[in-house]
Amino acid sequence: MDLLEFTPEPAELAWTFGGAPPVRRVKPGTALRLWTEDAFAGSLRSTTDLASASLNMPFVNPQTGPFYVEGAEPGDTLALHFVELTPARSWGASATIPFFGGLTSTDRTATLQDPLPERTWIYEVDTANRTVGFQAQGSDFEVALPLEPMLGTVGVAPAAGEVRSALVPDMFGGNMDTPEMRAGATCYLRVNVEGALFSVGDGHYRQGEGESCGTAVEGAMNVVLIVDLLKTPGPVWPRLENDEYLAVIGSARPLEDAWRAGQVDMVNWLGSLYGLDKLDAYQLLSQVSEVPLANVVDANYSVVTKVPKRLLPPVTAYDGIHQQLRTALS
Amino acid sequence: MDLLEFTPEPAELAWTFGGAPPVRRVKPGTALRLWTEDAFAGSLRSTTDLASASLNMPFVNPQTGPFYVEGAEPGDTLALHFVELTPARSWGASATIPFFGGLTSTDRTATLQDPLPERTWIYEVDTANRTVGFQAQGSDFEVALPLEPMLGTVGVAPAAGEVRSALVPDMFGGNMDTPEMRAGATCYLRVNVEGALFSVGDGHYRQGEGESCGTAVEGAMNVVLIVDLLKTPGPVWPRLENDEYLAVIGSARPLEDAWRAGQVDMVNWLGSLYGLDKLDAYQLLSQVSEVPLANVVDANYSVVTKVPKRLLPPVTAYDGIHQQLRTALS
Amino acid sequence: MDLLEFTPEPAELAWTFGGAPPVRRVKPGTALRLWTEDAFAGSLRSTTDLASASLNMPFVNPQTGPFYVEGAEPGDTLALHFVELTPARSWGASATIPFFGGLTSTDRTATLQDPLPERTWIYEVDTANRTVGFQAQGSDFEVALPLEPMLGTVGVAPAAGEVRSALVPDMFGGNMDTPEMRAGATCYLRVNVEGALFSVGDGHYRQGEGESCGTAVEGAMNVVLIVDLLKTPGPVWPRLENDEYLAVIGSARPLEDAWRAGQVDMVNWLGSLYGLDKLDAYQLLSQVSEVPLANVVDANYSVVTKVPKRLLPPVTAYDGIHQQLRTALS
Amino acid sequence: MDLLEFTPEPAELAWTFGGAPPVRRVKPGTALRLWTEDAFAGSLRSTTDLASASLNMPFVNPQTGPFYVEGAEPGDTLALHFVELTPARSWGASATIPFFGGLTSTDRTATLQDPLPERTWIYEVDTANRTVGFQAQGSDFEVALPLEPMLGTVGVAPAAGEVRSALVPDMFGGNMDTPEMRAGATCYLRVNVEGALFSVGDGHYRQGEGESCGTAVEGAMNVVLIVDLLKTPGPVWPRLENDEYLAVIGSARPLEDAWRAGQVDMVNWLGSLYGLDKLDAYQLLSQVSEVPLANVVDANYSVVTKVPKRLLPPVTAYDGIHQQLRTALS
Repeated sequence: MDLLEFTPEPAELAWTFGGAPPVRRVKPGTALRLWTEDAFAGSLRSTTDLASASLNMPFVNPQTGPFYVEGAEPGDTLALHFVELTPARSWGASATIPFFGGLTSTDRTATLQDPLPERTWIYEVDTANRTVGFQAQGSDFEVALPLEPMLGTVGVAPAAGEVRSALVPDMFGGNMDTPEMRAGATCYLRVNVEGALFSVGDGHYRQGEGESCGTAVEGAMNVVLIVDLLKTPGPVWPRLENDEYLAVIGSARPLEDAWRAGQVDMVNWLGSLYGLDKLDAYQLLSQVSEVPLANVVDANYSVVTKVPKRLLPPVTAYDGIHQQLRTALS
Repeated sequence: MDLLEFTPEPAELAWTFGGAPPVRRVKPGTALRLWTEDAFAGSLRSTTDLASASLNMPFVNPQTGPFYVEGAEPGDTLALHFVELTPARSWGASATIPFFGGLTSTDRTATLQDPLPERTWIYEVDTANRTVGFQAQGSDFEVALPLEPMLGTVGVAPAAGEVRSALVPDMFGGNMDTPEMRAGATCYLRVNVEGALFSVGDGHYRQGEGESCGTAVEGAMNVVLIVDLLKTPGPVWPRLENDEYLAVIGSARPLEDAWRAGQVDMVNWLGSLYGLDKLDAYQLLSQVSEVPLANVVDANYSVVTKVPKRLLPPVTAYDGIHQQLRTALS
Repeated sequence: MDLLEFTPEPAELAWTFGGAPPVRRVKPGTALRLWTEDAFAGSLRSTTDLASASLNMPFVNPQTGPFYVEGAEPGDTLALHFVELTPARSWGASATIPFFGGLTSTDRTATLQDPLPERTWIYEVDTANRTVGFQAQGSDFEVALPLEPMLGTVGVAPAAGEVRSALVPDMFGGNMDTPEMRAGATCYLRVNVEGALFSVGDGHYRQGEGESCGTAVEGAMNVVLIVDLLKTPGPVWPRLENDEYLAVIGSARPLEDAWRAGQVDMVNWLGSLYGLDKLDAYQLLSQVSEVPLANVVDANYSVVTKVPKRLLPPVTAYDGIHQQLRTALS
Repeated sequence: MDLLEFTPEPAELAWTFGGAPPVRRVKPGTALRLWTEDAFAGSLRSTTDLASASLNMPFVNPQTGPFYVEGAEPGDTLALHFVELTPARSWGASATIPFFGGLTSTDRTATLQDPLPERTWIYEVDTANRTVGFQAQGSDFEVALPLEPMLGTVGVAPAAGEVRSALVPDMFGGNMDTPEMRAGATCYLRVNVEGALFSVGDGHYRQGEGESCGTAVEGAMNVVLIVDLLKTPGPVWPRLENDEYLAVIGSARPLEDAWRAGQVDMVNWLGSLYGLDKLDAYQLLSQVSEVPLANVVDANYSVVTKVPKRLLPPVTAYDGIHQQLRTALS
């Protein structure tokens, strides 16, 4: 398998999905060893670095990419299999950002209240124990939390000529911020433009479901992934497969619409995989789905609809590409 | 430990939280062995029983109760520990109901479209294998799904003199429809009226998170629970504890408000359990919470914010009552 | 025409829709001369009376009623025609209430921010000029605003045995808080229980659309209304007719659902008045409706869908009862 | 005053805000006489032209522009004063589009129901009587409705390098679909990129508030406007001034967030115009605002917060540019 290594220079980082020239061309079936900058572009390095002084919103989530996938045409299915996600720094950072996050008013959920105070937390990575250290600032509480690396942003260039901020998740993927996007997952995205122009970034050393304060344990990441292409119709919403689950990620506002979009897509997927009509697939989904939140903080919110493989008869999705890719580098 | 057995006559069922006279008085520390009718009041017994002919909406979710808890006063904490939930019939039922459910327009999310077709599914209970059988109607697909009994409705009389339909979840509990309400869980509810007047019902033999079509595998249930009372301030929103998690269940519309309400309550709970200030508790929650949906189909939607005990230092909530009750009958 | 006068003693005020015994029985065709207390139960009388010290939330919006309408049966249409609304005090009051209102976080749209500061404004009524005086507190700005009396709450006992706080609008009417509920308007409500059990209250000397801060210029009101009854099917949502408009008031969350509910009901109303099929009524509504917000602050939000009579051919709604009642006392 | 005339060739139409090269450069203080294509790109010309066969969603709302305004820099205020809007065709069109509109499920508010039937309505323009003719298709009802020309889309290139579909309203303006955007109005927009790159389109011969079915009486339009520039800080959300009102247009989901965003901006505007502190401005707004819906059908919803000038002391906004421009061509 071909292997492409790429670490972007700061000036090569992309801040949007769409609208940026490709940094490299890759053939389907290539493995990529990438470095991704953290969501803050590395600007929060100590607890005295506060967001309002250090960040230039909405310029966060710098992307590694985009990559031009040879042969990818609108309507195709792009498959990205994540082989390995490893912290690329010895610390991660999280912060409250004025009027950003889930438990504060924002520029849309606007109120007249003062913003929450700003605070930055630095999490030391303990490689041996595979933990990150939370250290309270208002007391001496501390706790080591398991390292669970994931990527907040994975996406392609949007349809219809749009260019979207890397803060936004939508049908093209983007800032979905779900802990499901970890090593072992294969993400399926519909190609909207020639070459697909996918990019990845926004590594999290760990994240709760919902990403309550708007920032995870943000950290630079070493990413190994395999890119592949299927000439079959791409999904409406980003889909995800790992050894245990099939999943769809819907992104919208209000939150129930993010859920509805992903659920309807899963009804269609179950229907086609198992030959179920719409009502039977709806009924089956009602009794088997697991539905963790991804984020309730970005410009669109994201909800994951998961179906556990263990509950249903074995089935092959997308020509079995997940099964192939999961062992391709081993 | 005192044990009270109670199986309601059909005329004794309650259809609201608040507004019904108590069926029994119980002392804190009593075990109750109850029978609960299913959400459809037993009226869907074959695939030819359709909802529009058999149901009289919103008269669903008949309650076993209310029970008057001696000594319970407004502001107290009622604790209900679920010891055992066992199917009381050999079959469960699920159905699409016109303009009810998550992937259809409703009386609020109103559109001009025709309703989805009605269909009723009957799930046979296989006691030996502890499964329920899904049988597609548009094809010959069938699958046995694990039996995972839970209660859709658990609640007390509301505050401020309100009487609420058993279809609605809110601060008083009610129709939260979360799979977390299973044997092994202790539910904490704030008492709003003298005697608390709690009731339970709406047994589900299993349910996916979100309860997509609006109905789980609905079934009559044998319920063993222990009721207890703490003279400490009750929680704003229903809380839940089991051996693995602390949880809060927020219910509101839109779905993000259900999430916000439960999250803020959890920030407060974590803060008081671990001596964290508001920002530190917010930050910690952001990295550790698990947030499954409960329902996106009832008059209010419900979201569960869970904190895994394994990630945090040991702590005792509500005077350790969960630990006491979980072994009280063994 | 019979005339009933009624001024409730403080102990006779009702705080819910449903759940209170009738204060009087009236025959259809009776005029009522009523006095209503203000939303704060008269407790905010100077700028030093602050909400948190003076109010006991949610005990606001005390109701004058309920009235038992003889002959009213579930499913009927109750018609309430407002003849005259006159301030019953020389001052009105408005206030910011902690975590209540549209531009603050609330108990549902919960955040971790501090509440807005509390402030109470007193508006002097200038009877000669028919104005109320706004006086800024942070500067010496002042302005006289036109007196435009209206009622915030008009409703009947809810269906299905529910009892609802007088803070909540829903299908039964209640706290809709729309400036359209003024003298000259006829409100149509579906009867849910024998006798209908309607009540009115929450007088506003004026209110902007949306009631942004959660409180209008709240004031005690002298109300003259005529009650009538039609043995025709009552509307799903409260409807309103005046000389210029037909209107439907939908109440729900999120705000788009309040809009959808009222719009669908108006499509049905236009369809039946003009013999239009569903699509034609939808199209016509799309080009003629006026849609002011009512409130975005209560437990449900309310939106008014209005159709201007001047744009459409003359038509008679509800047997022409509005035209009869509007001149019945002149 | 300089006058620029411009009628785009079909290939010159723009389909996005941002991302298109300017068609002309203009100096501040220039009058433009423009022709705009209708939202359907002229493809619906008879009742037998149905949307699914004739439209290529989301390629609607073709724009006339963008225009590069000389001297415009990020942060400035662009002022567009609409002098005259005149139908450029003798007919307008409206249609139901599958899964698009307010009273149907959509790609976000997704359900499993079938779409509403498609139908196209053609409205003949009666220039003498200044009406457009509605003709029902399911019956012989017909009615002439007043011609009230307006523009659905007015906007500039977005911030942060984004390119957005002309279907979307947001901070940059865009598809706000409010009847307030008519002759006599001055629209204020914050400049995000050098030259501002504004465009206009989506003429409506009339539209109800909310644009229920998703399409107004869509028609090609002759537009006369004056463009001007102020080197003062541009507004967060699009603002609008006419002889009777000051207004802010917020766009977001859910609908209450569109309202909140515009309301907070209006609190700030009132505060700065009248020297009111935040709480006084909030209180005053609560009693004087008029809040019609604009649209509940686009990718974001839009709500207009209006303050009637007649209620408040005279004041000059944006250096009185509205007063100057409204008579500049007379």
